[in-house]
Amino acid sequence: MKYEEIELGSVHETRAQLITTEDVIAFASDYDPQPMHTDPAFAEGGPFGGLIASGFHTMSIAWSLWMTHGVMEQDGQGGISLDDARWFAPTRPGDRIRARVTISERRLTTRGRGFIRMDFEVLDHDDSVLMSFSTTGLLARRADGLTPGDATPNPNTQQEH
Amino acid sequence: MKYEEIELGSVHETRAQLITTEDVIAFASDYDPQPMHTDPAFAEGGPFGGLIASGFHTMSIAWSLWMTHGVMEQDGQGGISLDDARWFAPTRPGDRIRARVTISERRLTTRGRGFIRMDFEVLDHDDSVLMSFSTTGLLARRADGLTPGDATPNPNTQQEH
Repeated sequence: MKYEEIELGSVHETRAQLITTEDVIAFASDYDPQPMHTDPAFAEGGPFGGLIASGFHTMSIAWSLWMTHGVMEQDGQGGISLDDARWFAPTRPGDRIRARVTISERRLTTRGRGFIRMDFEVLDHDDSVLMSFSTTGLLARRADGLTPGDATPNPNTQQEH
Repeated sequence: MKYEEIELGSVHETRAQLITTEDVIAFASDYDPQPMHTDPAFAEGGPFGGLIASGFHTMSIAWSLWMTHGVMEQDGQGGISLDDARWFAPTRPGDRIRARVTISERRLTTRGRGFIRMDFEVLDHDDSVLMSFSTTGLLARRADGLTPGDATPNPNTQQEH
């Protein structure tokens, strides 16, 4: 979906994905090899009383669910920033998690590129929020620069801020 | 390394890791399936003129380099937050990247747990900073609550903020 087609304030809810013990251990073995993520026996006696997913894993799964949601995976033009990541509760094997993504900012950059901010909540099967974060990126624009429904070219096209 | 043994202001530089095309495609296929990360032919004609790693991949590699650096992988007790992630330049296949980690905050929480903030810079083989971020987590404490060199128990042990 091009920049002109994505709506400010729109809320998108992805499908849910089941997290398995094997997923948790595979990601953490490569990217977060702490025994609370990789060693079920150690994790039983650890602070969470069982194996939990790496926080980087939960965040990356949320992003992958958004990227396969059908909105922007063909038109992303790179990430700029990520802020305000907060882990409220761990993701555990057996959880089914999904992402709720709100488009909280949408504007042209000073160089006329499409900029969007996406606020994520990661929810489990009980609708508990496991984590949240916000990330901004660039999105390809329509060749004609027209927002659907506009009769004239979008005046924001020349906007400089 | 326990909370009492990690020094405020200390700077830790990890080993470097070579990023391969296979690594980039494997991570992105699971967690960031945008063609700029997964399809070399598409990426050639894309905004970066070649395949680039997912930003979540670069961040996760930096964390894994820190986790295998010998400082805290046995004593981490969970992540709290991540802020101020900024992607300045893409990670490309063939880059050798490493992390420079500064301990920028270190204190006991109101419940007497060890809290540290880690400021990351991710550098390539030319010492360019590809990205930066800050993350906070909890760290296990020494059973005796003594900072090495202290003659008496750390007065901060009872601190409540």
